[in-house]
Parts: sequence; C-alpha cells; structure tokens
Amino acid sequence: MSANWLDKVNWDERGLVPAIAQEVGSNDVLMVAWMNREALARTVETGEAVYWSRSRNRLWHKGEESGHVQTVREIRLDCDEDVVLLKVEQHGGIACHTGRHACFFQKFEGNAADGTWSAVEPVLKDPHSIYK
Amino acid sequence: MSANWLDKVNWDERGLVPAIAQEVGSNDVLMVAWMNREALARTVETGEAVYWSRSRNRLWHKGEESGHVQTVREIRLDCDEDVVLLKVEQHGGIACHTGRHACFFQKFEGNAADGTWSAVEPVLKDPHSIYK
Repeated sequence: MSANWLDKVNWDERGLVPAIAQEVGSNDVLMVAWMNREALARTVETGEAVYWSRSRNRLWHKGEESGHVQTVREIRLDCDEDVVLLKVEQHGGIACHTGRHACFFQKFEGNAADGTWSAVEPVLKDPHSIYK
Repeated sequence: MSANWLDKVNWDERGLVPAIAQEVGSNDVLMVAWMNREALARTVETGEAVYWSRSRNRLWHKGEESGHVQTVREIRLDCDEDVVLLKVEQHGGIACHTGRHACFFQKFEGNAADGTWSAVEPVLKDPHSIYK
C-alpha cells in the first residue's frame, strides 16, 4: 500500500495522533482516542472508527464489545497535521464506556482556588448491561 | 493554591493534556492545543484560553498576537480525565493561524490505497495581516 496520505500525518514519537469523534448533526464532541497508521487506514477501509488502545496495546474497533460502533462520514486533519477529526454517526447514541452519550460529562464549577468537576450528563444505559 | 481540582486531571508524562476548543453555538471544533497545570489554572482565572506551546515551550495566551482570543464559557473533562474540552467564543471568528475559522480544514478524499487531504475551508483573513 503506497498510501502517501498516511505520511502526511505527523505521527508522534509513539506513532500516534489524537482522534476526536464528533457526532454528525449535533456536532457534539463524543470522545477522544488515539490512532496509529493502521488504525487510520482501517478506519478508511471499513468506514467505521478504529482506534489504537494504549491500555490494551492493540487495535480497537470501537463498539466491538458494546455494539456502539461509529460510522465515519468524514475525516479531517488539522493545520499541524497532528490531530484527526472524525465526523461520525454514533450507533446506540452512546459513545462513553460509562453509558453516557459522550465522554465529556464532567463540568468544571468554581474558581481556580476552589473548583470541582461535576458529572452533569445522564447515564443512558447501565454499563454492566453494555459490557458483559 | 490548594486546587485539588487540578489533581483530578491525568496529566501525561510531560505534564500535559490535549485541550479541544469548541465554539459555543455552532459547536464547531476549532482547534486542539495542549495544557499544563498552569495553563488550565490561568484559563480558569482569566476566563480566556491559555495553552502550553510545545514549540515555544511557554504559556500561550491564545490571541496574544492575533487578537483572536477565546472567551471560555465552560470547561469539561472526559471520563478518563485526560482530555479537556473548552466551550469558547472565538473573537474575530478565526481560530487557525492560517486565517481560517477552524484548524480542521483538510478533508480526506479517496480510499485507503489512494487518498488525499484537500483544503476545503476558505481563508477568511490573510495570515500576514494577522501576524505582523
């Protein structure tokens, strides 16, 4: 595979870039994960989001366990070519492993001297019923 | 400053996390930059986005040269506590140093064997007139 388009990406010293999944329609930022060359190539090939799991050290087809796959409608690259943005349809409406729509459910409240992060988005589905 | 809320963030081995700036209203993803503890604390203190510039190795008050500052309306943290999401008002309507609204202006076209990244968003202002 020649795939010069993959060389355009500025992979970091680990061979990774952050990838943002943004929901088509709502434009909600659902999650951020990481991709290596193979993850990005597989995403293009399959039309579904494939990431690189740093914790499991392997390719991660998003939704492989939960069924909450992401159909990729568009792929963007930023000006520095070191961040990828996926515009996706989120199957099941749940991107987060906590059972929430999106991963960014903790909101900062307070001030710099005395702040807290509060969970402000509902759990749509019990994670125990998502992951057996 | 006690600031336990800063300890909640999973800073990486460099003491950084990625920070996404998302536009209030449109929900457009404008850019991704990096933050260290001080950048996040200053962002909360000042109400304007302050990042850590990896290339310049110093705090970077977004818009300090261009005037394209970002007023921060909300700060979110993801489930793994290693990515920050800022909901911002983008002054001047231009977040990208190329003079575009947002940094994600390169769109993937083609397939895995033969793909290209095409600039699909207009330059709103000549960068030479933004940065003297």
